[in-house]
Amino acid sequence: MKRLSSSMRYFMCVFSAIAVSTWMQSTTRAQESSISPFTLVGLGPGDPELLTLRAIKVIESADVVFCRDRNVPMLGDQLKGKELHFDYWRLFPFYGQSEDSIKPEQLNEFRETQTKRIEFVNLVRAAVAAGKKVAVLDMGDPMVFGPSAWTLEEFADLNPKVVPGVSAFNAANAALRRSVTNGKHTKSVTLTAGDRIGAHDNIEQLSVHQNSMVLFTMRTEFREFIEKLSVNYPADTPLAVVQHAGDSNLEKVIESTVGTALNDIRADELPFDYMIYVGSFLDQKY
Amino acid sequence: MKRLSSSMRYFMCVFSAIAVSTWMQSTTRAQESSISPFTLVGLGPGDPELLTLRAIKVIESADVVFCRDRNVPMLGDQLKGKELHFDYWRLFPFYGQSEDSIKPEQLNEFRETQTKRIEFVNLVRAAVAAGKKVAVLDMGDPMVFGPSAWTLEEFADLNPKVVPGVSAFNAANAALRRSVTNGKHTKSVTLTAGDRIGAHDNIEQLSVHQNSMVLFTMRTEFREFIEKLSVNYPADTPLAVVQHAGDSNLEKVIESTVGTALNDIRADELPFDYMIYVGSFLDQKY
Repeated sequence: MKRLSSSMRYFMCVFSAIAVSTWMQSTTRAQESSISPFTLVGLGPGDPELLTLRAIKVIESADVVFCRDRNVPMLGDQLKGKELHFDYWRLFPFYGQSEDSIKPEQLNEFRETQTKRIEFVNLVRAAVAAGKKVAVLDMGDPMVFGPSAWTLEEFADLNPKVVPGVSAFNAANAALRRSVTNGKHTKSVTLTAGDRIGAHDNIEQLSVHQNSMVLFTMRTEFREFIEKLSVNYPADTPLAVVQHAGDSNLEKVIESTVGTALNDIRADELPFDYMIYVGSFLDQKY
Repeated sequence: MKRLSSSMRYFMCVFSAIAVSTWMQSTTRAQESSISPFTLVGLGPGDPELLTLRAIKVIESADVVFCRDRNVPMLGDQLKGKELHFDYWRLFPFYGQSEDSIKPEQLNEFRETQTKRIEFVNLVRAAVAAGKKVAVLDMGDPMVFGPSAWTLEEFADLNPKVVPGVSAFNAANAALRRSVTNGKHTKSVTLTAGDRIGAHDNIEQLSVHQNSMVLFTMRTEFREFIEKLSVNYPADTPLAVVQHAGDSNLEKVIESTVGTALNDIRADELPFDYMIYVGSFLDQKY
């Protein structure tokens, strides 16, 4: 717990300093008044140091905050006195669909998600009607595989704002210390995730270019990913797994190749969300 | 100039608060000592509010800073008292190549770049030898089309660190307020730039998937980009140009389609670096 405590103390110190400076408040008042009543805030990958000043400022000015309990340690006392809600996240499934379009086996999940979503929407609407400012906090960049992007459509009439965050992608790039867009014969990077039926851009299809590829691995199978990559990337293509990107204490990089990854890396020791990087950029020299 | 001045005052205030907190310095001393003598720092897309706390901390602790004069307004007084160098950037061309591999028409450019690069390397080595900490500042995310990534290879023996930054990509995602990985039949996004001879991932090739694509447009032709996108993206595919992403005062989004972009958007009014986004995610509903 030493790690969290040290990060928290550092963070809270910066925060107190900001809170004390009423001077800042007054100079930015004109801008504040134009801030939307609804803001989706990217917190970065989890290390308090990777918060932006804008994220801090918006959280500071919010009255009602929706977040997850695991966000609390990185925000510390800053959430004190605010109306907090922890139980409303990952409410995007089935958004915009009506009950009669749902398969019978998904009906329970549909109804549960919809009930929570209506509760959430009502809480936000009530807060805004009472003149309060609402912030929804997401990890990383809320627009890159973020679970709360749907709220921008729901609250389009409120002129919602988004605070960009350091994505796990950016943090993992830094951990790798290689220029991700600088492959041997390539100059692009593709960010993707587990395949879904009907998609035109499944991993096998995308990998024909052998460009740099980054896999966001939430709830998916390591073996399945590697097998799909093996179809088009030669076995000696370098591959890396980045765990806890951006966290100076827990961050870990495992280097391997497409051909040897299943031997080199123990899937059961990987955390819930890790990143897989593949492509010649990993051993590219300038 | 009001904009800059207001941003600067806000930033300098936060900075002063940090500088005053010697308490923070002492609690993080253990970690400081493990900080590399050489750090490549991502500043974000240009708005002082999109700096991370870690970028601020590393700049604060640096003795020697390499940056561009256009970075100074966003950093303000914070650079006072530091050894500053402005004349050493974009030194990656020809890195690692020897003179006999250079075409005659590029020989002058090769020699000039190499001379500057040797000066830069000598300055860094001398500073590190004198026990100083060196920070090289880049805009955005230094690993995504960043011009200073080569320094990590040059100074590999110094165990260099990278501070990830909010890329223009993340800032533009936020400006668009759409989930960039959420296309109609796609779930990936490709970041690319102007084509180069011999690349396996030119824009025409990448666009066969019709996934979300982001073009970093440094020094390239708007018409040429649109013509390449037109080969595989249907004419009615939505397209957006984002200018000055992340800057709350200057940010501008122009919405169009692949088929009408050349009529809707005046290329001669675009700034040096703008972003082009294309893909069905732009009008995708949940």
